[in-house]
Amino acid sequence: MDKLAEQIGTALDSFPIELPSWGFANTGTRFGKYLQDEAASTVEEKFADASQVHALTGVCPTLALHVEWDLPGGLNDVPRIRSLESEHNIRSGSINPNLFERQEYKFGSICNPDSGIRKLAQEHLLASVELGKALQSQDISLWVADGSNYPGTQSIRKRIDWMMEALAATHAALDPNQRMLIEYKPFEPAFYHTDIADWGMALMLARQAGPQAMVLVDTGHHYQGQNIEQIVAWLMHEERLGGFHFNDRKYADDDLTIGSIDPYQIFRIFHELLSAGQELEKVAFMIDQSHNLKSKMEAMVQTVCTAQEIFAKAAAVNQQELAEHQSACRLVEAEECLRRAFWLDVRPILAEWRKQKGLPEDPLAALRESGYVDRIRAERGARRPKTVSSYA
Amino acid sequence: MDKLAEQIGTALDSFPIELPSWGFANTGTRFGKYLQDEAASTVEEKFADASQVHALTGVCPTLALHVEWDLPGGLNDVPRIRSLESEHNIRSGSINPNLFERQEYKFGSICNPDSGIRKLAQEHLLASVELGKALQSQDISLWVADGSNYPGTQSIRKRIDWMMEALAATHAALDPNQRMLIEYKPFEPAFYHTDIADWGMALMLARQAGPQAMVLVDTGHHYQGQNIEQIVAWLMHEERLGGFHFNDRKYADDDLTIGSIDPYQIFRIFHELLSAGQELEKVAFMIDQSHNLKSKMEAMVQTVCTAQEIFAKAAAVNQQELAEHQSACRLVEAEECLRRAFWLDVRPILAEWRKQKGLPEDPLAALRESGYVDRIRAERGARRPKTVSSYA
Amino acid sequence: MDKLAEQIGTALDSFPIELPSWGFANTGTRFGKYLQDEAASTVEEKFADASQVHALTGVCPTLALHVEWDLPGGLNDVPRIRSLESEHNIRSGSINPNLFERQEYKFGSICNPDSGIRKLAQEHLLASVELGKALQSQDISLWVADGSNYPGTQSIRKRIDWMMEALAATHAALDPNQRMLIEYKPFEPAFYHTDIADWGMALMLARQAGPQAMVLVDTGHHYQGQNIEQIVAWLMHEERLGGFHFNDRKYADDDLTIGSIDPYQIFRIFHELLSAGQELEKVAFMIDQSHNLKSKMEAMVQTVCTAQEIFAKAAAVNQQELAEHQSACRLVEAEECLRRAFWLDVRPILAEWRKQKGLPEDPLAALRESGYVDRIRAERGARRPKTVSSYA
Amino acid sequence: MDKLAEQIGTALDSFPIELPSWGFANTGTRFGKYLQDEAASTVEEKFADASQVHALTGVCPTLALHVEWDLPGGLNDVPRIRSLESEHNIRSGSINPNLFERQEYKFGSICNPDSGIRKLAQEHLLASVELGKALQSQDISLWVADGSNYPGTQSIRKRIDWMMEALAATHAALDPNQRMLIEYKPFEPAFYHTDIADWGMALMLARQAGPQAMVLVDTGHHYQGQNIEQIVAWLMHEERLGGFHFNDRKYADDDLTIGSIDPYQIFRIFHELLSAGQELEKVAFMIDQSHNLKSKMEAMVQTVCTAQEIFAKAAAVNQQELAEHQSACRLVEAEECLRRAFWLDVRPILAEWRKQKGLPEDPLAALRESGYVDRIRAERGARRPKTVSSYA
Repeated sequence: MDKLAEQIGTALDSFPIELPSWGFANTGTRFGKYLQDEAASTVEEKFADASQVHALTGVCPTLALHVEWDLPGGLNDVPRIRSLESEHNIRSGSINPNLFERQEYKFGSICNPDSGIRKLAQEHLLASVELGKALQSQDISLWVADGSNYPGTQSIRKRIDWMMEALAATHAALDPNQRMLIEYKPFEPAFYHTDIADWGMALMLARQAGPQAMVLVDTGHHYQGQNIEQIVAWLMHEERLGGFHFNDRKYADDDLTIGSIDPYQIFRIFHELLSAGQELEKVAFMIDQSHNLKSKMEAMVQTVCTAQEIFAKAAAVNQQELAEHQSACRLVEAEECLRRAFWLDVRPILAEWRKQKGLPEDPLAALRESGYVDRIRAERGARRPKTVSSYA
Repeated sequence: MDKLAEQIGTALDSFPIELPSWGFANTGTRFGKYLQDEAASTVEEKFADASQVHALTGVCPTLALHVEWDLPGGLNDVPRIRSLESEHNIRSGSINPNLFERQEYKFGSICNPDSGIRKLAQEHLLASVELGKALQSQDISLWVADGSNYPGTQSIRKRIDWMMEALAATHAALDPNQRMLIEYKPFEPAFYHTDIADWGMALMLARQAGPQAMVLVDTGHHYQGQNIEQIVAWLMHEERLGGFHFNDRKYADDDLTIGSIDPYQIFRIFHELLSAGQELEKVAFMIDQSHNLKSKMEAMVQTVCTAQEIFAKAAAVNQQELAEHQSACRLVEAEECLRRAFWLDVRPILAEWRKQKGLPEDPLAALRESGYVDRIRAERGARRPKTVSSYA
Repeated sequence: MDKLAEQIGTALDSFPIELPSWGFANTGTRFGKYLQDEAASTVEEKFADASQVHALTGVCPTLALHVEWDLPGGLNDVPRIRSLESEHNIRSGSINPNLFERQEYKFGSICNPDSGIRKLAQEHLLASVELGKALQSQDISLWVADGSNYPGTQSIRKRIDWMMEALAATHAALDPNQRMLIEYKPFEPAFYHTDIADWGMALMLARQAGPQAMVLVDTGHHYQGQNIEQIVAWLMHEERLGGFHFNDRKYADDDLTIGSIDPYQIFRIFHELLSAGQELEKVAFMIDQSHNLKSKMEAMVQTVCTAQEIFAKAAAVNQQELAEHQSACRLVEAEECLRRAFWLDVRPILAEWRKQKGLPEDPLAALRESGYVDRIRAERGARRPKTVSSYA
Repeated sequence: MDKLAEQIGTALDSFPIELPSWGFANTGTRFGKYLQDEAASTVEEKFADASQVHALTGVCPTLALHVEWDLPGGLNDVPRIRSLESEHNIRSGSINPNLFERQEYKFGSICNPDSGIRKLAQEHLLASVELGKALQSQDISLWVADGSNYPGTQSIRKRIDWMMEALAATHAALDPNQRMLIEYKPFEPAFYHTDIADWGMALMLARQAGPQAMVLVDTGHHYQGQNIEQIVAWLMHEERLGGFHFNDRKYADDDLTIGSIDPYQIFRIFHELLSAGQELEKVAFMIDQSHNLKSKMEAMVQTVCTAQEIFAKAAAVNQQELAEHQSACRLVEAEECLRRAFWLDVRPILAEWRKQKGLPEDPLAALRESGYVDRIRAERGARRPKTVSSYA
């Protein structure tokens, strides 16, 4: 077990997890939000919350920022962010442009038939790149929510060209150490067609944009029955795997806690990474979840711990034995070899690993004991909005 | 053709379509709403819009009302609604309770483990029944949005009993001429389990509640690949088909225009109804769509016309010929017999039918010519909210 | 741990697993079969194989029989089966009629528009009931493969009545101790509509047939994203859960090893059973898998062990703690309580439980060491068919 | 209408449809085949049947050949095929290698970990290329059925490299006028992973193989909810659209008649082709269906006619008007413009177009009147196999 614990520990050391600033804010469904007193509504509160999660888990040194919500003042907001970074011992993580919230984007942003709106969106992307430079953040994490709701209402073909133009121009503005991550999603908020619907489209766009463009895999953005680990294998093969958005789902893009619905699938994705000998520092591991019911802070700590547990299991696979079984087509042996690692109860190993780092052995329990949540509930609750937006 | 036109005309005469009050208001996705100047924000505006749609199409005499949004004052609002009915020549249609918008319903309404919240929800249902009586509306149209997001967080089993209790109590309060329609939906806003997930659960609940409880089929509330017309056949067989919510979808519950994605499926549903000799007056045909991009008034008129076109095609099926082919297992002949009706261009027949009723032959064109939309845009635009709710 | 081990052991004592005779024979896909030397081709070989699995696992005392393949001689075959039962210490399990293999069933069996063919199918069902009596087997396990491939080619409605007639007549022939299990399946071999497509249809049919008709849940016969444990909860609520066919799938009805794709789902199904306090002796646990690549004997032993492992995990759930968290809507605590049991490494407990029963601690290893497979390969290989059926 | 009829006629002139030799043979599901007396069992019969379909429709001058079933003698079979071509006025169409029927391919063909088996498969591919040259057939149509059934049993990553190697070697053997079409499929016959699962993988393989490698879109090989016309748009954008396999499905890869389940989707695919100004002679339009219930000859003629009808509708779209609506984001107008063409009853136009070419106006009726099917039933029925392969 000692050797296994060491093997797992080494893997965990290479597995930082980025927190999303919006994960501490109130989010919900189109039918409404259930507001939480503890929810963060300022970037200061988001840094404070992230800092608390990092203090408890030790693996969350960065906070993904959303340009629209966290940096509405653009470059003017940089000094404030810099100061929050120092204060909370949390660095700015990926910079997330927003191409869906402005009313102008009703029919698309960089794929809009109106060149004026495409220009607006392009400028937002370029401004995001500049924010990345100013904050020394490596990744521009790009979700293009463009699409259409009805057959015939837009030219799918023309929009490919418009998108390629915008991404190439964005890539051209990158510093050598910056990357552009391109996310794909089959549907929602557009329902008939999404301009970047799958990994193939994202990969084609990345290749055309340039060498610093990579594909971002959101675990919830796939069709039912799709084999995500195979997509990951292909992206590694093409050297275009840029990172992950962690979450889980049962039917659509439900943005549930990673591994909460199908933990074996997440395990297989991690196994694919580790068995390929992928350099993990080139992969951004980021949480992207939307909790309407779970308490924000609890859900975040639980997510980090769950991701670590499943990653630890993947790190426990005996790669050499597995490869031998695979070569010899010993199916049952190969399967049992893989699954042995999945069934391994890694929680004692994780507790020990945390202890050695001076971290709480059970971060979720430590969160409850810390009184942090009670405190922010009291502080922030008074400012909670009294009404919520109605569905209709 | 004359006989066919007559056959189609007779069918259209039995095909009224109920408009939803919320269909004239701004709606959207969890990522935001694209606001329309023309959107209705008061019940007066909704009646006015419905009246305009009815004037153009002649088949929309009723307006579904939402208790939370249209009748916030409960029985006190009844006189105002009565007066709107007279003014606009539109009757109140189905009464739609709301069991999802209040913060209390975070963990469920009639399925909530907290008996106090179940009572709150029960009272809302009973109040809705009283509203139905006061407005002489036949149907209480019930969507229970309850469910859970994560395995283990709720007892699926106990919630069945709580739900049965609430529905039985609601049924007990019905007048003999009232009905309770029970809607099912596989997911959203809850993502792991929905307490009424499919037609089987809705049917079991209806049977247990009593003879006036019927099942409501929302065309978008099914799994991928599910055969909706077969479900309709079963509900008719069990004499529990209460009505429809019309819409279409590509992936999830997208609430797109009926027939916009898969018109053949809607045709087959209508065919199932007509071939069974179902008494159409016992089936409520209601629109339930959410248009984030299409103009509200245009979309509504287009929906009514599309539903009529597809219904007319179904009415054109030669039932006797089809039955003979089916009995003899002449597959290709049977299929071509059915499809001949689907491919029939019924628009000239519909135009003629409208003309005979003194209606505009092309309601969509008539809407554009009427100037109605320009007028309400000007009137209502000034009052449009300046900001929208943000995703996070 | 001792108390937990005891709790798990007690659960395992109530968890017999029925083997399918056809699971030892060569099966495949429409594109072909990969033949195995070890595959059984006679009922004698199937009893021998089942006996070996039972010897290794101790929990498989019965063998499901297929009327068409194992009892082609009808009642005349009973003495031979009786003698095999004694010889191999394996009892006859469920009796499986076959309504799909005869050319007559091209357009349906009990739902065929031709009354002569319906009669043929009805007689087969009645003969199966008699076989059940003669073999003292409790369950007639009924899969109606009927359906149609194209819209309009059959009357869905009329077929409901024909099916109800046949099932009522079959039920009427049952002895008081016999049961009829009704299986549902959304598609395949018919592709447009399956006459018993989902649990709701199966339940309606069971209710109409009589009190001894129950629903059979094949874990692979569901739509993508469907919540199987909720269906199980409803069937228990209605007191119509008859049993399971164990297997797993990624996309369609793939008939893979149970838990091989989504073990957490199987765990949740078992948890639903155990948390409801379901009397397990009233539930038939049966394997129904089709292995085209895995070695037949290995796959069967692996399946039994996997089912036991996941069942043991479900038995480890702290039901009282979970119920308290659920009542109080402590979501994360409830979820972690459930998942703690899932992550428990039960293999040592299982090994100990087996040891106490005088069984091999690792049945798969014991199978390999036994030399059984080598022996049957040598014996049966010579008789292996030289050619296989081609796709076209 | 005259101008429209002309526009449609011109489009139909560029729309030849290739028949599959295996489409005239008995096929079925894993549960069995329903044998037809009329089914072809020799290559002579397949040419005769194809010739009859071509005589009735005038648009099917080529017959796709399957190496395993039609050319078992390899190059030795070429003279016989040549003579059949002359006799029946049908040319050899695409050459289809078979990488799934031999027992050696149990764990894969060109992706098999065993280099000896990879070599066997490679040689089959090279032999197929030579057959293409000898038969002056343009396309090698390649379906790689490789994959695995269980997580961990094969190295997805290594198999990518093996596949790339094989495809590059095959490409290197092509004559300048030959093409290699690469088909993708998400699942079946392998259930956990398919080595070429989607269009992105097929495209990457084609790019790596060389300029004469193109992607083949089988309309039934997609995930539920996937937007096929968008994939077609991307493949045209990348200049790698090689052709289509026509069929339809409801749930999985059901190989039903094109347009029988969702005709609007097929219409949109054809519209995407036509609106892009795609050179149609560079696209292979091929039928790939498996009829277990429909009569073979009837089904084939029906398929050709249905494809033509839907293609004619797509050709009726007013492209200029549509483009203007799209540019101006007039959603409802754009949608109605597209749909107006879909609802156009093109059958009279098709009848006229056929009449002008000296073809029967109703090919299906002409088939029935011809007596051809009765004749082949009588001739071939006697030789029909007396038994079919059993599922188990």
